[in-house]
Amino acid sequence: MKTYLDCIPCFISQSLEASRMATSDENIQLKVLREVMKYLQNLSFEGSPPETSREVHYIIKSITHSKDPYRHVKEQANNVARDLFPYLKKIVKNSKDPLLMAVKLAITGNVIDFGTMNRFNVEEMIDAVVKGEEIDQWSYKKFVKKIGNVENVLYIADNTGEIFFDKLLLEELKEKKLTYVVKANPIINDATVEDAKFAGIDKIAEVIPGDIGDGKSAPGMLLKHASKEFIECFNSADAVIAKGQGNYEALSDVDREVFFLLVAKCPLVAQDLETNVGKLILKVNK
Amino acid sequence: MKTYLDCIPCFISQSLEASRMATSDENIQLKVLREVMKYLQNLSFEGSPPETSREVHYIIKSITHSKDPYRHVKEQANNVARDLFPYLKKIVKNSKDPLLMAVKLAITGNVIDFGTMNRFNVEEMIDAVVKGEEIDQWSYKKFVKKIGNVENVLYIADNTGEIFFDKLLLEELKEKKLTYVVKANPIINDATVEDAKFAGIDKIAEVIPGDIGDGKSAPGMLLKHASKEFIECFNSADAVIAKGQGNYEALSDVDREVFFLLVAKCPLVAQDLETNVGKLILKVNK
Repeated sequence: MKTYLDCIPCFISQSLEASRMATSDENIQLKVLREVMKYLQNLSFEGSPPETSREVHYIIKSITHSKDPYRHVKEQANNVARDLFPYLKKIVKNSKDPLLMAVKLAITGNVIDFGTMNRFNVEEMIDAVVKGEEIDQWSYKKFVKKIGNVENVLYIADNTGEIFFDKLLLEELKEKKLTYVVKANPIINDATVEDAKFAGIDKIAEVIPGDIGDGKSAPGMLLKHASKEFIECFNSADAVIAKGQGNYEALSDVDREVFFLLVAKCPLVAQDLETNVGKLILKVNK
Repeated sequence: MKTYLDCIPCFISQSLEASRMATSDENIQLKVLREVMKYLQNLSFEGSPPETSREVHYIIKSITHSKDPYRHVKEQANNVARDLFPYLKKIVKNSKDPLLMAVKLAITGNVIDFGTMNRFNVEEMIDAVVKGEEIDQWSYKKFVKKIGNVENVLYIADNTGEIFFDKLLLEELKEKKLTYVVKANPIINDATVEDAKFAGIDKIAEVIPGDIGDGKSAPGMLLKHASKEFIECFNSADAVIAKGQGNYEALSDVDREVFFLLVAKCPLVAQDLETNVGKLILKVNK
């Protein structure tokens, strides 16, 4: 997905939020905003939004001298989701169609996000799923058919907290050879190897960082900054699942089949998906 | 009220919105955003937000070659409010306390605003007022006591559409010598002399532009850019009523008593007023 003019105020709002998480010094926060505005003067609209986020968050981290401004909210999200996990697991187990329920809850977990300006209540959204909120039936049938016939599944993760919701789905796919892709470096509230281990995902999948780890991770899997290992898995996997807006923005135009699981939180992403903000989305690009 | 770091992304969002109203050419819209970001590099946080808006909207108008980007939405707001007026007038007439009802509705009219990012439903808010939504009793008593004893009232207007709600209150004060202050030039959706005439306010009050009319009006009455006539009225008026956020931001620290009537739409203004976004506010600064 390309970058829109609307992304500019959003990058700036996010820069202010992130710099406030990193420091209480208003002069440093102002310096961040100034540098980000300077960088955005030459913004390319051909690239996807995560490409710009990659640079913007590098500026934030450099100026605030913080490697991980979202550390606290990430821990919080992981702890909340860890405590929810047994309840969610029971919902899946008691469901008539555990795979469908696990898919829906994996999507729902995507509302735990600090990378967008729209915030949702995760518990309300879980309730809505339990009460029968649906996802696109055509895409789900295609997903079931595909998943039933494959051995290797590449699962590209998104955020902390959300990773426990992913675990529900990964456990439903435990017969497969699973690879779980996280970020090499902290970026917004995205999950890293450490987070995946915290959720015990390393026990059911091979956990790999998707990007090259040059200190500038992006909140979406950008092929041009991907690790060799990721590219190999991406090309050879029988099925690819990608979570969240960032991965949709980064991968929606790639030349292989990808199942995107997300909640549209940004109006432009919702528009690109021909849906509304807040809807549970399962979409296949081919 | 001073300017906050949060005003920066808000100025940029507003610049995008205004430039889209002025032109459909994305290159020009981008040029606006670039110039505004360049201008904001040297933003002073000592001044009030309307001071910056004055410059930002001048940049927008210059680059888009549009003297009045909000012309269409202004006309729309005026037409909707004109059609509502007879209904509102009946509410005031049938009320137990017509002055209180007129004050509340004048405040409610302030939700018609394109200068802030939070949008409200004016009809829902009118219903809430009819059903008994209250304003601060202490401030209202002070207002009634003051208004009962004075001859000259200076009423500083805010937006188009809203001016018909002002008319309800002006008509309740018709025994007084009324001066109604509007903007010399179009700025966002603020009312000008032409709008006041459209609402027939020139029949019940003397309508004057408050600012010097150098082509750079601000969405709030800034004393340092005020016309001589305004300053004379402001100093000599027995009572001053100022509508909306912009006038609150511009005048909250001045050295004379002002009754502010507004709906807090921005979280920072709400914080400054120790209230919540969406509340009806009557506040006196002294």
